[in-house]
Amino acid sequence: MKFSRSFAVTLLTATCLFAGSAQAQGTPSKGEQALKYRKALYQVMAWNFGPLGAMAQGKVPYDAAEFARRADRVAAIAPMLVEGFPAETKGLPHSELKPGMWANRADFDAKMKDLVDRSATLAAVAKSGDFAKSKAAFFDTANTCKACHDKYKTD
Amino acid sequence: MKFSRSFAVTLLTATCLFAGSAQAQGTPSKGEQALKYRKALYQVMAWNFGPLGAMAQGKVPYDAAEFARRADRVAAIAPMLVEGFPAETKGLPHSELKPGMWANRADFDAKMKDLVDRSATLAAVAKSGDFAKSKAAFFDTANTCKACHDKYKTD
Repeated sequence: MKFSRSFAVTLLTATCLFAGSAQAQGTPSKGEQALKYRKALYQVMAWNFGPLGAMAQGKVPYDAAEFARRADRVAAIAPMLVEGFPAETKGLPHSELKPGMWANRADFDAKMKDLVDRSATLAAVAKSGDFAKSKAAFFDTANTCKACHDKYKTD
Repeated sequence: MKFSRSFAVTLLTATCLFAGSAQAQGTPSKGEQALKYRKALYQVMAWNFGPLGAMAQGKVPYDAAEFARRADRVAAIAPMLVEGFPAETKGLPHSELKPGMWANRADFDAKMKDLVDRSATLAAVAKSGDFAKSKAAFFDTANTCKACHDKYKTD
């Protein structure tokens, strides 16, 4: 193996620094790091969800391959989200999470699971290239976003 | 379908606002949006790459399921990265990309492909639960990170 252990340490340090470069100055707490991770995940989610919505709403022509590619990404990101909500993020500023979530964690987690399940279905259906079914699966997924946002996300 | 078109518009607007909330005030340009997307992707990558490195280096005990889970995520994120480097991001501030990349785009894209290929192998190997092979596949992947960072990322 040409890869040296000392390089590995250097790389990982660099990776951490890289991840931290978008963060506030100073060493972020574990909760602050998780909050940054969470925001990054939602950013990635939104980037890929947007084109699905545009196609589902007929704003841009349906492209089956593009739809399937974006759906796969949404389905890959969805299961990562819950890790962005550890207890250490409770009460942190610059969050759009309503504090009421913490007393309703089981419901929140159930809503997250709905998103994971529906987005997995969306990704599977999208592979069929059937627009009507893909569109329906998109709206099913979007409804799970809405259910959680309505209850737990500030405006 | 219970999901109304007007709600879909509302949702997508909200999604865009949500994604934009971490951005500078004002409407970001297409390039600025892509740069934010790129940074978010690297943040997600680093979050999941870190635990792999810690296990590969023996800093924390090897957990085959956790290793496979993180490897899957790295493999899912890797193919998304290249979309974060459109021409519109050229010359934007707050980027760690060396401007020399733009004259070496084919080499940069080849390095990105190396990452995609090696991380796919990593994810496949990780499922075996074989630590020695998983570790080797991790270092192979990390080397593709290093090859690109050395040439195209500022310190």
